[in-house]
Amino acid sequence: MDVTADGSENYVIGVDYGTLSGRAVVVRVRDGKELGSGVFDYPHAVVTEALPADVAGVADGTAARLPGEWALQVPNDYRDVLRHAVPAAIADAGIDPAAVVGIATDFTACTMVPVKADGTPLNELPGYANRPHAYVKLWRHHAAQGQADRINALAAELGESWLPRYGGLISSEWEFAKGLQLLEEDPEAYAEMDHWVEAADWIVWQLCGNYVRNACTAGYKGIYQDGHYPSDDFLAALNPQFKDFVSAKLDHTIGRLGDAAGYLTAEAAAWTGLPEGIAVAVGNVDAHVTAPAAKAVEPGQLVAIMGTSTCHVMNGAELHEVPGMCGVVDGGIVDGLWGYEAGQSGVGDIFGWFTKYGVPPEYHQAAAAAGQGIHEYLTDLAAGQAIGQHGLIALDWHSGNRSVLVDHELSGVVVGQTLATRPEDIYRALLEATAFGTRTIVEAFRDSGVPVKEFIVAGGLLKNRLLMQIYSDVTGLQLSTIGSTQGPALGSAIHAAVAAGKYADVRAASEAMGAAPGAVYTPIPENVAAYNELFREYRTLHDYFGRGTNDVMHRLKAIQRSAAQPANVQSLLTESFNAEEVSA
Amino acid sequence: MDVTADGSENYVIGVDYGTLSGRAVVVRVRDGKELGSGVFDYPHAVVTEALPADVAGVADGTAARLPGEWALQVPNDYRDVLRHAVPAAIADAGIDPAAVVGIATDFTACTMVPVKADGTPLNELPGYANRPHAYVKLWRHHAAQGQADRINALAAELGESWLPRYGGLISSEWEFAKGLQLLEEDPEAYAEMDHWVEAADWIVWQLCGNYVRNACTAGYKGIYQDGHYPSDDFLAALNPQFKDFVSAKLDHTIGRLGDAAGYLTAEAAAWTGLPEGIAVAVGNVDAHVTAPAAKAVEPGQLVAIMGTSTCHVMNGAELHEVPGMCGVVDGGIVDGLWGYEAGQSGVGDIFGWFTKYGVPPEYHQAAAAAGQGIHEYLTDLAAGQAIGQHGLIALDWHSGNRSVLVDHELSGVVVGQTLATRPEDIYRALLEATAFGTRTIVEAFRDSGVPVKEFIVAGGLLKNRLLMQIYSDVTGLQLSTIGSTQGPALGSAIHAAVAAGKYADVRAASEAMGAAPGAVYTPIPENVAAYNELFREYRTLHDYFGRGTNDVMHRLKAIQRSAAQPANVQSLLTESFNAEEVSA
Repeated sequence: MDVTADGSENYVIGVDYGTLSGRAVVVRVRDGKELGSGVFDYPHAVVTEALPADVAGVADGTAARLPGEWALQVPNDYRDVLRHAVPAAIADAGIDPAAVVGIATDFTACTMVPVKADGTPLNELPGYANRPHAYVKLWRHHAAQGQADRINALAAELGESWLPRYGGLISSEWEFAKGLQLLEEDPEAYAEMDHWVEAADWIVWQLCGNYVRNACTAGYKGIYQDGHYPSDDFLAALNPQFKDFVSAKLDHTIGRLGDAAGYLTAEAAAWTGLPEGIAVAVGNVDAHVTAPAAKAVEPGQLVAIMGTSTCHVMNGAELHEVPGMCGVVDGGIVDGLWGYEAGQSGVGDIFGWFTKYGVPPEYHQAAAAAGQGIHEYLTDLAAGQAIGQHGLIALDWHSGNRSVLVDHELSGVVVGQTLATRPEDIYRALLEATAFGTRTIVEAFRDSGVPVKEFIVAGGLLKNRLLMQIYSDVTGLQLSTIGSTQGPALGSAIHAAVAAGKYADVRAASEAMGAAPGAVYTPIPENVAAYNELFREYRTLHDYFGRGTNDVMHRLKAIQRSAAQPANVQSLLTESFNAEEVSA
Repeated sequence: MDVTADGSENYVIGVDYGTLSGRAVVVRVRDGKELGSGVFDYPHAVVTEALPADVAGVADGTAARLPGEWALQVPNDYRDVLRHAVPAAIADAGIDPAAVVGIATDFTACTMVPVKADGTPLNELPGYANRPHAYVKLWRHHAAQGQADRINALAAELGESWLPRYGGLISSEWEFAKGLQLLEEDPEAYAEMDHWVEAADWIVWQLCGNYVRNACTAGYKGIYQDGHYPSDDFLAALNPQFKDFVSAKLDHTIGRLGDAAGYLTAEAAAWTGLPEGIAVAVGNVDAHVTAPAAKAVEPGQLVAIMGTSTCHVMNGAELHEVPGMCGVVDGGIVDGLWGYEAGQSGVGDIFGWFTKYGVPPEYHQAAAAAGQGIHEYLTDLAAGQAIGQHGLIALDWHSGNRSVLVDHELSGVVVGQTLATRPEDIYRALLEATAFGTRTIVEAFRDSGVPVKEFIVAGGLLKNRLLMQIYSDVTGLQLSTIGSTQGPALGSAIHAAVAAGKYADVRAASEAMGAAPGAVYTPIPENVAAYNELFREYRTLHDYFGRGTNDVMHRLKAIQRSAAQPANVQSLLTESFNAEEVSA
């Protein structure tokens, strides 16, 4: 079915929309072989300080400034990826674009675009170019925490049935918190908006002309459970003006993953150089789409996309409510299974932070002399240690805790430092801390009747072999790494092939097109025993600092916020010691 | 009384024996003015790996090797200080040595010399030069922990009355533990030894030909309380051969501080260039002798000698048993008052460790560009913060806890790190942690009926003005710094003047000769309030980790020791990951 009548091959395009760029990959339908790729950096990257003058249509210095915690993007940057990265990938693959039968995209989430009925983003309307709320709110826009807190408090008070599906907490990153912020801070823009759209679906709309809400984000980010959103009464209790948010701004056709949302328009065909009318798959999320790319779509196969943070996705045959998870969604990863999602908010970024701010010149010099990066150098030093030799236990909450505890006010801890502690000791303790964090998630799944049988790693950190062995030893699970370096784009390509009718479903396409493992790590029994001992210490500290025995981390954050207030910072400018010099 | 009949001045010499060198200072009797100084580095410094071939009388490579935790010194190095540093100080001062009326010394403690009846160190005997136990055991020789543990367990079991005087624990650094180690590991050397002598007293013996045990170390290090040492029965229960340790090796005339132990011998006069027959004061300890140098000999004046570690000394009018203190000794600082001692085992060495191993190249470059040392640079950055702005709490136990908890198995902790944490944040948190440690000691004194009214700082760290203000704000006490840069040597000189009969007692000499404060820091009320809040968090963590709620630090040390065993380290040499590369 994958070769045309004249014997030539079929191809699909997968496009992965990341935080800073979009990457297109050309994949052969028959076997998933990746033939070429193209990358395009978003011209406006992430907007955090002030709107870009060019799109705001104002002189430099007069564009609207953004408060703290904001993170916006410019929608047209996403169209530019189609104009540049897709043709580049086709050229790189050296294929005839006429042989491309489908295209699919995956996106960061929850990343929201306010649009008119025809899909035009508000920022492209006259009079809206210099209004922050008219732009895309990127997943890591964290300025809606107040709204999220109110949603959670009210949902807990009312015992809303959907709350346990999200481990008991709705994130400030998600559709409702961001939508409520938009209403309350720019009611005019809110009134002007016809749809509050995931970027994952907006880009599909741009490709095929149809607005279809993908089942994945509708469930994980849009609180769509069992065919319903939160009720009008619930929304009205948050804010009377928010009562019709679902019916007026959010509700729309739900598309199953792997289905076609529509067919490539003439306009999008012109952007991309692809044939008009080829299948365009329902939108998807970068992490979730990686599961089929890793051939890990069966229940119990936990896929961890390990980069600056880690996202865990896993299918299950049944619905279980797992405390502290990010979400469980029917058909959230592949249609017909329950998709579970969990996450660790800090992983690679903790290692990166440590190497940037905690490693002395001698180590950087020695690494350079050895022709190594600092991560490689520290990893080699750490790999020479017996387990526990560093005498340390760390908690991996430098970016808070996303799953199990679901508390972004938590912070990092290192216990056990002495004058003999060296940077490689702390580095290894941090690697281990993230592995303990993963084990905590694995155990939470297991304790809720969702056993994890196998651990599959995608993302940049899979290159660190010490880290992979530690994860295998700490979890006691066989660990395999994905064989593709473009997991999400490959996953999208798999969805494109299904949408084009080349495979019956995503599971079949994954089996044929998914990447074989790059490496397989097996737990070493004596290491597993040694880590069991250290993990007990981790769990004790985890519960002490994370479950309310000592809320010192919350109090330190509160003190920090109050200390950073203008009145206090002002006083620093004139700070002097209360010292009297005495002539001896 | 301080000027001779012909109107010329009188002078005294103070010699401070530190860990690596001896420093002599010439001081004017009339007013304590420091006129000149000389320093001599011990040729053999601290011996930790193997005996030095020259004194062991063997070829290089054949000298006895030392196990871990050992720290020895060579006694003749101390004589060399008299030969070199004293004449250098006189030359530097430009005085006539004939005008010197007395000499006094202070020493590290507990630093022990095994000697024959005439004071000859065992290592200088034929056949003993290549035997480790024949040498000086320096204060930081930590290889007698096993002996100390047995002493403590037995004393607790038997309810020995002297135990509470030492906060409930006898240190492995002290006379009994080190003596028992000598007996048990080299019984021949033990049998050969006629006296087990504090170096503080041995050097006085070298100067005046008399062996006098100073009241300070006899009390603080020798468990001499209320006129008695531990009983023969107690000693026999430790080891039958140890039964007569006190009577055979330790007991000797006790000398009051400030008294003359004797008069300079012709031999010592020849070494030093000083007049034969001048007064030689009873020996003393570097920390304790600093109190009169700082004019801080009244009850309630707490003197902190702040360097790599901090030693606290304070006089009290009455005896109180303060839990977790290093010791309380009648006449231990000045005759007629109870001398209290406490300590923090890690202070400046924690800051030094952090700057050496935890600060990235950019910071070192910026410091160098600004013409600053790294401590100065970090201090300036930290000084720009409001209290609590860094969001951190640290425990200052990187070298264990010497006072209050008295537990060397404790270790350091930092709580609250995020990806926004910078080196200056951790640096400031470590400065504050040591201040919280000091406040914990101050409160332990206060809670036991020994109020602290004033805080006087000597030692190298007094130069850090931010640190001094933090200590004042954290303790809520007025803090003054000693005006002399040679506190211990000045303190010894004060004792020399008293021994020479130039003042009635140490308190009078301190009043006349002690240094005026260099600077006075006053608590800033809003800072005191802010630190009260952070100190509560410190105390909660202090008790959690330090008082048995979570003994994770002890367990981490045990795991560390077991991981470092040869069998485990060996296995590292052949360690490989349990990974199978799979061709994708």
